[in-house]
Amino acid sequence: MSIIRQDIATRDWTIFALERAKRPQDYKQEKKIRNNQAYVEDCPFCKGNEHMTPEQRLVIGDPDWKVRVVPNKFAALTTSKQTSYSVQRHKTGLYLSMDGIGEHEVLIESPVHNQHLATMDQAEMEKVIQAYQQRFSVLSKNENYQLIIIFRNHGSRAGTSLEHPHSQLIATPFVPGYIRNRLQEAQRYFDDMGCCVYCDMIEYEIQANKRIIEQTQDFIAFAPYASVSPYNIMVLPKRHQSCFIQAGDDLQRGLATILKKCLIKLHDALMDPDYNYVIDSAPVDKAGEKHYHWHVEILPRLTTRAGFELGSGMYINTILPEECARILSNTQKS
Amino acid sequence: MSIIRQDIATRDWTIFALERAKRPQDYKQEKKIRNNQAYVEDCPFCKGNEHMTPEQRLVIGDPDWKVRVVPNKFAALTTSKQTSYSVQRHKTGLYLSMDGIGEHEVLIESPVHNQHLATMDQAEMEKVIQAYQQRFSVLSKNENYQLIIIFRNHGSRAGTSLEHPHSQLIATPFVPGYIRNRLQEAQRYFDDMGCCVYCDMIEYEIQANKRIIEQTQDFIAFAPYASVSPYNIMVLPKRHQSCFIQAGDDLQRGLATILKKCLIKLHDALMDPDYNYVIDSAPVDKAGEKHYHWHVEILPRLTTRAGFELGSGMYINTILPEECARILSNTQKS
Repeated sequence: MSIIRQDIATRDWTIFALERAKRPQDYKQEKKIRNNQAYVEDCPFCKGNEHMTPEQRLVIGDPDWKVRVVPNKFAALTTSKQTSYSVQRHKTGLYLSMDGIGEHEVLIESPVHNQHLATMDQAEMEKVIQAYQQRFSVLSKNENYQLIIIFRNHGSRAGTSLEHPHSQLIATPFVPGYIRNRLQEAQRYFDDMGCCVYCDMIEYEIQANKRIIEQTQDFIAFAPYASVSPYNIMVLPKRHQSCFIQAGDDLQRGLATILKKCLIKLHDALMDPDYNYVIDSAPVDKAGEKHYHWHVEILPRLTTRAGFELGSGMYINTILPEECARILSNTQKS
Repeated sequence: MSIIRQDIATRDWTIFALERAKRPQDYKQEKKIRNNQAYVEDCPFCKGNEHMTPEQRLVIGDPDWKVRVVPNKFAALTTSKQTSYSVQRHKTGLYLSMDGIGEHEVLIESPVHNQHLATMDQAEMEKVIQAYQQRFSVLSKNENYQLIIIFRNHGSRAGTSLEHPHSQLIATPFVPGYIRNRLQEAQRYFDDMGCCVYCDMIEYEIQANKRIIEQTQDFIAFAPYASVSPYNIMVLPKRHQSCFIQAGDDLQRGLATILKKCLIKLHDALMDPDYNYVIDSAPVDKAGEKHYHWHVEILPRLTTRAGFELGSGMYINTILPEECARILSNTQKS
């Protein structure tokens, strides 16, 4: 019989139907041939092509840049001209809309086209995380940006068309219902139990020791009990922090270390799968609250969300997180 | 500047970033070559291969069947042996799980392998809807099935691997948070305004006359004001009904008519795009409530949900629903 598991933090349920389970090698994806050169003439993110991007907002490394942050040329939202809250709502008949104010930035992770997060060295990876932090921090000062989401799309199944390694940042002028619900569930847990649900999960996962993928002094990575998809990984700081802005220099280094370890394991176990990751953080005006806990959610794109998932918001997973953790933990860097 | 629109029923916001807009022909998808034969020897859904499926639960047409319903051979959930509520919860340390009780059925829409909903005749399409209704009605009598979701996956991007035309039904032993939130938002609107938010939308859309794709005496199909993706279509009965079980024979015929019209338009305008549709209905124990309104949501799979969408629950759309409605309304059956 299948089993249905609840995510204690979001209270969402995942169906585990294990009859359909696959081995790691069954997930091997057809890849578009990647341009395996260090420099590509028409790539706007390659070193030497800086003139092809809008004006840079941050550069790390001088004179040889290591990470550059630029506005997205096809930005989904328009930069706010003011720093105090000034987003206009509009009523059209029955409906409500608001100005498309926000930020949409590209964080170019390397000057080298065929670089790869999983194969970067530690110092390079730290600079990527440093750029995340710096942009998060600067944009947080603008009241129009109610939520800042940093994410990475790796491979075409994960929604990227550009192969040069990069992450993105979008700042929105409101907190969407999906995030608001998560915050509320965590608040309810805190009201019931008097502690952060994520802190409780960390303590329990260390004690259970069945789903852990990596652990360092400051971070833990595990396969969540109600994983929404095969090889879903959650990376959390062990110390309670609601907002990503609270992570200092030490945690930047620690996050670079553990994230890199997880990505290498995925790369090696699943033959460089397409994936997304996203930094899930409380909005900046909630930094310091006791009930939320920022974390990184890694979602390999090994399956397709079909009508059932789209219509119900639920997921059917085919492999238990205990099994994924076992496979990933036993994966040695090749 | 982009614009952000709110779905009045769910209160979710969609970002419209129109700089990236495409023409219909730009969406043309690479298709796997379809087996264009009426009969395929190893297809379990073809006429003559009935022995390859589990025992059928419903057949329409005798002796020549038109629609057959069978349990899914790789069911995500296990049929309940009892009709009174008997799903067990389990506590494992910090976490909660429940038995994987439910239903997972396949509705084979035609005996013919290379049939297509958009090209079926009206009588055939009516039998498909009749099968939806009959299974929904029978399964509703089992208290273990708290929510029944009927959906269709068309094409590999929509998550199907079998090309023989079919829909699916999944009955779950709980109502997921995603659906519960929708019900609650509709309830709140009712408490505020004294009427069903979907009824208000229908009235407003008829009056605004900018997003309508098809209209019959009993049904309306329009591109929602805050469409989550290009060519998103919502089909609603004009009369207030919260649960799909309330649609009688008349509405079965009416739904077959309008759904077929919409699918033909999508097929012709977008060159047979992959799509999902799902019947979004109140749980059966809420049939008769005043605040929800069952409908069919059609979601062409023209774009990929990337890290931002997965992490925020929000969508970035690149074309306004007014433009989609205009293009689809002008599409003549070829």
